[in-house]
Amino acid sequence: MNGIASLADIRALLESLSQGDNDAATTIAQRQSRLTKPQGSLGRLEELVAWLGRWQGREEPRLTDVSVLVFAGNHGVAARGVSAYPASVTAQMVANFERGGAAINQICKLVGASLKVIALDLNIPTADFTQSQAMSELDFVEAVATGYDTVPAGADLVCLGEMGIGNTTAASALIAALLGGGGERWAGRGTGLDDTGLSRKRETIDAGLRRHETHHADPLAASMIFGGRELAAILGATLAARRHSIPVLLDGFVATAAAAPLARLNPTALDHARVAHCSAEAGHRSLCAELGMRPILDLDMRLGEGSGAALCVSVLRAALACHLGMATFDEAGVHERD
Amino acid sequence: MNGIASLADIRALLESLSQGDNDAATTIAQRQSRLTKPQGSLGRLEELVAWLGRWQGREEPRLTDVSVLVFAGNHGVAARGVSAYPASVTAQMVANFERGGAAINQICKLVGASLKVIALDLNIPTADFTQSQAMSELDFVEAVATGYDTVPAGADLVCLGEMGIGNTTAASALIAALLGGGGERWAGRGTGLDDTGLSRKRETIDAGLRRHETHHADPLAASMIFGGRELAAILGATLAARRHSIPVLLDGFVATAAAAPLARLNPTALDHARVAHCSAEAGHRSLCAELGMRPILDLDMRLGEGSGAALCVSVLRAALACHLGMATFDEAGVHERD
Repeated sequence: MNGIASLADIRALLESLSQGDNDAATTIAQRQSRLTKPQGSLGRLEELVAWLGRWQGREEPRLTDVSVLVFAGNHGVAARGVSAYPASVTAQMVANFERGGAAINQICKLVGASLKVIALDLNIPTADFTQSQAMSELDFVEAVATGYDTVPAGADLVCLGEMGIGNTTAASALIAALLGGGGERWAGRGTGLDDTGLSRKRETIDAGLRRHETHHADPLAASMIFGGRELAAILGATLAARRHSIPVLLDGFVATAAAAPLARLNPTALDHARVAHCSAEAGHRSLCAELGMRPILDLDMRLGEGSGAALCVSVLRAALACHLGMATFDEAGVHERD
Repeated sequence: MNGIASLADIRALLESLSQGDNDAATTIAQRQSRLTKPQGSLGRLEELVAWLGRWQGREEPRLTDVSVLVFAGNHGVAARGVSAYPASVTAQMVANFERGGAAINQICKLVGASLKVIALDLNIPTADFTQSQAMSELDFVEAVATGYDTVPAGADLVCLGEMGIGNTTAASALIAALLGGGGERWAGRGTGLDDTGLSRKRETIDAGLRRHETHHADPLAASMIFGGRELAAILGATLAARRHSIPVLLDGFVATAAAAPLARLNPTALDHARVAHCSAEAGHRSLCAELGMRPILDLDMRLGEGSGAALCVSVLRAALACHLGMATFDEAGVHERD
């Protein structure tokens, strides 16, 4: 499939997912057992190299072309006072990304990743989900397709992040629809809500869930009703990466929520993805647990914009450097265990 | 003080500890509140920059000269079958470090750190602590002094790691003496002990604790009785770093245990240090909690040789890159919060 033109295309992709290169992963694990270290002593670094190899289809994974994609969207629900910042900040931050002034710019430079920022119709916010569904089917599919098309087919790793004032509200409502529980369970303080704002956010989420109660059983419908263009694009990009055999780092709360509908439709759909870090946003730890995904870093970050995913690239580079550069027991003349 | 020649010198240093540059830390926190991100949203990255600045005494911290010091020692207690590997592996791994074949070599190269390996009388193992104290006072002070003298006074950051077959047994006994509890609480599988080996390790620790019951109340005595040269050197290096205003990353279980006596003697003695990662070695999480230190990474690593500390340098570099490179709200024309 060359792109996505309908909901049926998304469902078709989910029915024909590759399962990765098991042989590459096995070869990698075998080499790791011969390297000069106690078995398994590099912990998750070892697992991550095998994961890279499995999804790249390479016995010697590489991280030459690391692509950080940050999708930005605006949300009608932001007008309900669910964020500490005005909606105008989305476009201002996109401009900041383009001028190189944001955290993600500094981290990408440091870890040697290319950054692409995709602003999705910022001047047309999605609808307020307490009043109607956030997106029409057409809008939703278009955003998914944009995400899908943005993934460079030759990348070695894709990091997915987002920017959008109000989008933790959208993400929380989406997860609530997928996994149960309401605003109480899933809403957090986002960019820094006070107690009053948090109550309002919870009520907004619960109002949305009541409004669409009979319609959000299907995960793609839930994404359309509660999500936003940047969430839909992340869903599409995650699918494209699977299609192109590219491992994915999901950034934080919103990015994980955005990809979650895929896992509800096919339990193996996120096997090529890892959650880069556990966000300080309230619902993220629980969401990751529900998805069976253990975040790699846990640094109380809650910035979004792909920052945790880009930072995590340095862990992957270290894992790979050890794997490719270490001597084996034989080469080093080190005794193996008794 | 130019060096350490006696236990009294160590105690004198601990009574005249600098408390860091509070003004630098405050200036850093003020700048962070003006950068284009929600307050506190970079989580621990923000705290780590303030920590670097406080202990470097710089409003603009730097990580130009990062020094990884790996101390190696041999342990008489290894002959009791408390490790999955023979004691000869210590020297073999030191040779591997020198040839560039170990994990620490790859990680140092990646993060731009210099590596120095200091082998401490590998052909003279410390005594078996179930029979006598591991080191004489003279041996102990000499190893502390070596560690002290090894720290380059101009470094921006020092990472402390170790290698020594049997040293998780020494570290566990040392912590048990300092904090209470015995082999059951503190012994882990080290490089990969089976159940029988783990029982033997626990019994060995308990035998040592019984043997020296009346003598290990003083933290330095405990280090002398149960520790090893590489642990003593890490203690000395930690003190030297404080003296030279250099922040310290302690690697894992053994390095944290090695520095722990300092915190027992002066509760502020490790304020200039962070635990780089939580080791998979059983007692480490509990040890860090007892010391009030929250590890930065948690990747199931348990290799030692400074590997977790060196990896953590990449997190510090990212923190610093954000701090120094990001635009402020004013510069970027981004609205601050409502």
